[in-house]
Amino acid sequence: MSETDATQAMERTPAAEISTMAAGTEVRVAGWVHRVRELGQVSFVVLRDRSGFVQIVYDGPSPVTPETVVSIQGRTASNEKAPGGMEVKANATEVLGPAAADAPISVAGDPDSIGIETLLDHRILSLRMPKVRGMFELQSEIVRLFADYLRGFDFTEVKTSKLIGSGTEGGTGLFEVDYFGERVFLAQSPQFYKQAMVASGLERVFEIGAAYRAEKHDTPRHLNEYVSLDVEMGFIDGIDDLMDLELGILSHIFDGIRDGSAASVLTEYGASVPDRETLSRTPRIDYEEAKNIASERTGKRLFDLNPEAERALCDWALAEHGIEAVFVTGFPRKKRPFYTWPEGRQTASFDLLFRGLEITTGGKRIHDYEMLVAELPKFGMKPEDLGDYLTIFRYGCPPHGGFAIGLERLTQKILGLENIKAASLFPRDRKRVRP
Amino acid sequence: MSETDATQAMERTPAAEISTMAAGTEVRVAGWVHRVRELGQVSFVVLRDRSGFVQIVYDGPSPVTPETVVSIQGRTASNEKAPGGMEVKANATEVLGPAAADAPISVAGDPDSIGIETLLDHRILSLRMPKVRGMFELQSEIVRLFADYLRGFDFTEVKTSKLIGSGTEGGTGLFEVDYFGERVFLAQSPQFYKQAMVASGLERVFEIGAAYRAEKHDTPRHLNEYVSLDVEMGFIDGIDDLMDLELGILSHIFDGIRDGSAASVLTEYGASVPDRETLSRTPRIDYEEAKNIASERTGKRLFDLNPEAERALCDWALAEHGIEAVFVTGFPRKKRPFYTWPEGRQTASFDLLFRGLEITTGGKRIHDYEMLVAELPKFGMKPEDLGDYLTIFRYGCPPHGGFAIGLERLTQKILGLENIKAASLFPRDRKRVRP
Repeated sequence: MSETDATQAMERTPAAEISTMAAGTEVRVAGWVHRVRELGQVSFVVLRDRSGFVQIVYDGPSPVTPETVVSIQGRTASNEKAPGGMEVKANATEVLGPAAADAPISVAGDPDSIGIETLLDHRILSLRMPKVRGMFELQSEIVRLFADYLRGFDFTEVKTSKLIGSGTEGGTGLFEVDYFGERVFLAQSPQFYKQAMVASGLERVFEIGAAYRAEKHDTPRHLNEYVSLDVEMGFIDGIDDLMDLELGILSHIFDGIRDGSAASVLTEYGASVPDRETLSRTPRIDYEEAKNIASERTGKRLFDLNPEAERALCDWALAEHGIEAVFVTGFPRKKRPFYTWPEGRQTASFDLLFRGLEITTGGKRIHDYEMLVAELPKFGMKPEDLGDYLTIFRYGCPPHGGFAIGLERLTQKILGLENIKAASLFPRDRKRVRP
Repeated sequence: MSETDATQAMERTPAAEISTMAAGTEVRVAGWVHRVRELGQVSFVVLRDRSGFVQIVYDGPSPVTPETVVSIQGRTASNEKAPGGMEVKANATEVLGPAAADAPISVAGDPDSIGIETLLDHRILSLRMPKVRGMFELQSEIVRLFADYLRGFDFTEVKTSKLIGSGTEGGTGLFEVDYFGERVFLAQSPQFYKQAMVASGLERVFEIGAAYRAEKHDTPRHLNEYVSLDVEMGFIDGIDDLMDLELGILSHIFDGIRDGSAASVLTEYGASVPDRETLSRTPRIDYEEAKNIASERTGKRLFDLNPEAERALCDWALAEHGIEAVFVTGFPRKKRPFYTWPEGRQTASFDLLFRGLEITTGGKRIHDYEMLVAELPKFGMKPEDLGDYLTIFRYGCPPHGGFAIGLERLTQKILGLENIKAASLFPRDRKRVRP
C-alpha cells in the first residue's frame, strides 16, 4: 500500500477533537492550511476544518502552503503552547487540493480590518474566514429554530411560487422576468399565497424563502434579495396573538443560539441575545405615541418613523423597560397595504423594532370579501387588478394575520453588524450581482 | 356579554378531538362548512378544520352554507352514525367568514374526478380539498425530515442567491431578469454556490430552494419552477459515499412519513413507501449495463436512458432486487456538465431512478483547478466564461460531490400522481403563471 493509500484508509479525526485524545495516538486530520510558521529546525502549521483548528508539527520546513487542502497522518503529542495543549507530529502528508499563492485576501486575516466591498468582491475567499463563516452557521441555526418552534404549534411549511403574473402590491419595486416572452415579476413577498394557504384549511403556515425588492437605495439596511421568514395564522382574535407568537419564536431562537452550537459565534462577535424574561417585557405602543417619544428623544418634530426614530425608540425601550425592542402598533391606513385590517384611520398592524432597526412588519388582514372590495378604491385599485387573489375571501376565509422577519436583518442585529450585506452569503444590491 | 362574545370567549376544540370527549361536554369548534344535509326537522353539517371533521346537528334548517367559516358553540352527544361516534348539538353559531354560493368547483367533491388543469385554474379552492391539502402536509414533512437527517450529520443549511450574473451552465434554459437595466438570470441550481460553501470550510451543506428551468416542454414530469433539495459534501472518497448518503436521507424521510403525522396522507392516496431494508437493496449499475437491460426489457435498441428506459429499469430492479429504484452510474462525459469528475470517457456521476422516474442527479465534481481549466475547451468554454467560479478551486478545494432531489418529483412518486404539477402548490409551466 502506498503512503497515499495509507493516509486515505485511516478514519479522519475532526481538528477540535485532537485536544481530547491521549498523547501518542495515531491520527489522521484533514482540512485547510490556515497558517504556516517556519522556525528552521521545525515548522508549525495550523490546520483548519469545520470543527476548529489543530496545530501540526513538521521537522524542518513546512511541505504545505496556506489554503492548501491536505490530509495529514501523525501522532498526537502534548504541547502546552498548542491550542488545547495537544498537537500532531506529522509523518505523512497528502495534498488533496493545491492552492495558488496569489490570494487577493488572507483567509487568516481579520475580516474587521477589511472593507465590506472588498470582502464581498472576494466572497469565495472571505467566506473561509472563520469569523465570517460562523455568521452563516448561526443563520442555519436561526432557520432551524424558527421552523422548529412553529411546527411545535402545528404550523405547516409551504413553498410558494416566486414568479407572479401581476404586481398586485404596485408595479414599482418589482423585478421583471421574461417568461417565454411574457412579462412576469419576482415576488416581493409570499403575502397572497400564505393567505391562500390559511384559507385552504392549513390554518397556520410558514415559509422560508427568497423575497425581491427592486428598490434602488444603497443603505446598510437594505438588500434587493433577502430571505424572508414568513408566518400566517388563522382564527386570531387580533394582533396581540401575532405579537405573542413572534415573541415566542424569538425567545426560542435566542435560547437556542445562546445554549447551542452557535454560542461560540456570539462569543466571537462579542454579542449577546435577550433572555426570555427580558424579551417578554417588550412594550407595545401606538404609532402616535411612538412619534411623540421619538420626537422628544431626538429633539426633532418627527412626522414619520424614520431610521433615526427607530433608534430613538429602542433607546427609550431599553431605558424604560430594559429591552432594546419595541412593538409599534396602529400604523395609519395610508402607510399600510390595502389588505391591512382598518381601525378607523389606523390599522391593526405592527412593526417590531429591535436594536434600532425594524426587523418585522405584520398585521391582521381583511378577510371579508365585501369589505376588501369596498376598500380598494381608496387605494386607487379595482377588483380586476387583483386577479385570483379575491377568490381567497369570496369563499369563506377565517380572521387571520401574519408577519415576516428578515433573516439578514435579524442576523445583523444579533451580531451587531454595521452593514446588512455582510449577513447575506451572496448579497445582491444596486451594483452587485456577483459572485 | 352578547352571544357573539360568548362563542369567541370559549377555547376552540379541534374537530378531531371531539370524538375523544365525554358526551354532554360544552365545546366550541370553528372551521369551514364542508357539507350540509337538510332532513326537515333536523340538519347535519360537517365542519372541516385542519385537524379533520366533526358533525354538527341543528334543529330545523341549517343556518350555514358550504365553505362559510363559522364558530359553533354546542354540546357533545353520542351518535353512532357520526364520525368517531360523537357529534355536536349546536346552540350558538357565528359566521366568521361568509362564502358565496357560486364556487366553480365543489370543495367536498373528489379531486380525482376533476381534470388537472381545472384543479389548477381554481387552485385557491382545490387546495381546500382535504386530499389535495394533504399532499402539502406531506411535503412539509419531507422538507423537515430532509433537513433533520442532514443536520444530524453536521450539515449546515445555506441560502444562496437565485439571481446570477452569467449563465455558466449554458445560456439556454435560463429565465432572464431585468436587474436595474442589466441582464441577469434565475439560477438553474445552486451548484456553484454549494461548491463554494464546501470550499469555505463548512464542508457539508444543504439548501432547500427554488430552481428555474426555462424549458418549453410541457410534460407530466417537468416544472419550470421547482423546489430543489440540494446536498454537497466535502472529503468524499467517491460517489458511493453520496449514494449511501442519499439512501440514508430517503430512509429517514420514508420512515418519518410512514410512522408520523403524514401517514394518513399515504392511506388516502393508497400509497406506501419502501422500508429501510428494502431501500438498501437498491442496485447500482453502470450506464452501459443500464442501456442493455432497458433495451432487452423494452425490445428496442436504446441509445439513451429516455423515460421509457427509466420505467423499464425500475421494473427490472423490482423484479431482480425487490425495490422499484436503481442508481445508474458512470454517465458518459458528454452527457454531464463540464464540472463532473471524468473517468476515461465516463464520469463519476449517478442518477437515482425511483418508480420509473429520475428523481436525483448527482456526482463527484472536479476540485482541481488545473484539471478543470484543461477540461473547459472540450465543452467549448473558456476560463473567462466562469467568472468567480474558478476561484473556488484556485485556492484549495477538497474532493467533493453532491446531488439534488426534486421535491415535487419525490412527492409525485411517493403518492403515485400522474402529473407533477399536482405536487406543486402554485405550479409554473409554459402557459401558466397564475394563480
